[in-house]
Amino acid sequence: MNAKDIQHMTPTRDANTSTQGTDQPAWSREEFEAQLRAKGTAYHIHHPFNVKMNSGGCSREQIRGWVANRFYYQINIPLKDAAILSNCPDRETRRRWVLRILDHDGYDGAEGGIETWARLADAVGLTRDELWSLEHVTPGVRFAVDAYVNFARRAPWQEAVCSSLTEMFAPQVHRDRLASWPEHYPWIDPEGLAYFRSRISLAQRDVQHGLEVTLAHFTRRDQQERALEILQFKLDILWTMLDSIEKAFAQ
Amino acid sequence: MNAKDIQHMTPTRDANTSTQGTDQPAWSREEFEAQLRAKGTAYHIHHPFNVKMNSGGCSREQIRGWVANRFYYQINIPLKDAAILSNCPDRETRRRWVLRILDHDGYDGAEGGIETWARLADAVGLTRDELWSLEHVTPGVRFAVDAYVNFARRAPWQEAVCSSLTEMFAPQVHRDRLASWPEHYPWIDPEGLAYFRSRISLAQRDVQHGLEVTLAHFTRRDQQERALEILQFKLDILWTMLDSIEKAFAQ
Repeated sequence: MNAKDIQHMTPTRDANTSTQGTDQPAWSREEFEAQLRAKGTAYHIHHPFNVKMNSGGCSREQIRGWVANRFYYQINIPLKDAAILSNCPDRETRRRWVLRILDHDGYDGAEGGIETWARLADAVGLTRDELWSLEHVTPGVRFAVDAYVNFARRAPWQEAVCSSLTEMFAPQVHRDRLASWPEHYPWIDPEGLAYFRSRISLAQRDVQHGLEVTLAHFTRRDQQERALEILQFKLDILWTMLDSIEKAFAQ
Repeated sequence: MNAKDIQHMTPTRDANTSTQGTDQPAWSREEFEAQLRAKGTAYHIHHPFNVKMNSGGCSREQIRGWVANRFYYQINIPLKDAAILSNCPDRETRRRWVLRILDHDGYDGAEGGIETWARLADAVGLTRDELWSLEHVTPGVRFAVDAYVNFARRAPWQEAVCSSLTEMFAPQVHRDRLASWPEHYPWIDPEGLAYFRSRISLAQRDVQHGLEVTLAHFTRRDQQERALEILQFKLDILWTMLDSIEKAFAQ
């Protein structure tokens, strides 16, 4: 099964129906986690556009293009997480998962990740109108992000949880930006980088929960291989977003 | 359009396509709200089983049957509310709506409405196994509750919000139980009635938000009439649940 199949999967499809690899012994939890983590080689941290961005090679227009496009991903995260909640009959899981929605939308005095991203947009010189109108968002970025949300709506909730595990690789990409942007892009107010700082600890907490669910649910070898395919599907989403941004903002 | 049609509606269906009543002037907000509130005559507070329950005519088995079946509704409420969140692109609305999920699932030290209902089940003599196994839940109750969740998954979020407005009528049904049960059913520990107490103020807060959304969204006369049909659909769900419970627990 490839990533395209995953996108069209319905919630009633059962991972048990796969015949791939059923004859092989399951990986141990440690080996399975290692296999998941090994997928980091396909994380968008290695995408040429990201490498260029973190080595100071991007123009202001390219930085703005990336921030405006990635915003479409940010505003869809709570919808994705609510879809997972809506498919999850386990209250204890929901009580932990709902924190992701609070993190992104904010609550009481906490502004939340979407607003923190909007402050990054301010810092790189996008107006709030430009940002919220989504006028700079490319069709390719829309399709990729929408594929992620649709997967979460339609897949069994444990599979949607598994797809979130690209967060395993996120702290490094945030640290890289915090380390390199102030040097390469002194025109960006460092206060605007608060989003990257905030996500390092939150991503670690989220990964712990996502891994618990994934390691407990995908136990047979064919299921473990399916989990790797789901993670690859999510890696493809992030990578494809950068492909589209790179093409649209060539200089 | 009748309630059956509403259940099969997809999120892409637009309320504007209705031709019913397009020639008639819209009701004022006050008149529209009055029309919504007038639907209270069809609220399940008037169902023969509810009347019997609050006048002391139910056996222990009937009370237990009601509590066990209504639990299926309770545990589906967070899934319904998450479906609404998942369909709602407006962050401000989500920040208010997510409180309903926290109310039911609990958070930090707050046990939440599902657990409070489980304590009602304790008080009426159901074991936790009986309750959580859903063994007493009738097919009719399942179908009705599932119809509600499916509507929330598939309808535009404002329509799903509108369907929640039966809460306008809920405080009275809770007050009736708090007033009548201790007298009629002295075998039930009054501590077990905490759910009814907790919902009075929460329902009032929820109704205020639900009405704001509904009054702002359904503005043309045909839309307002559609809102009344949606509310009737939800009233039918609650009424049909009691029909099924009454039949299954005849004495």
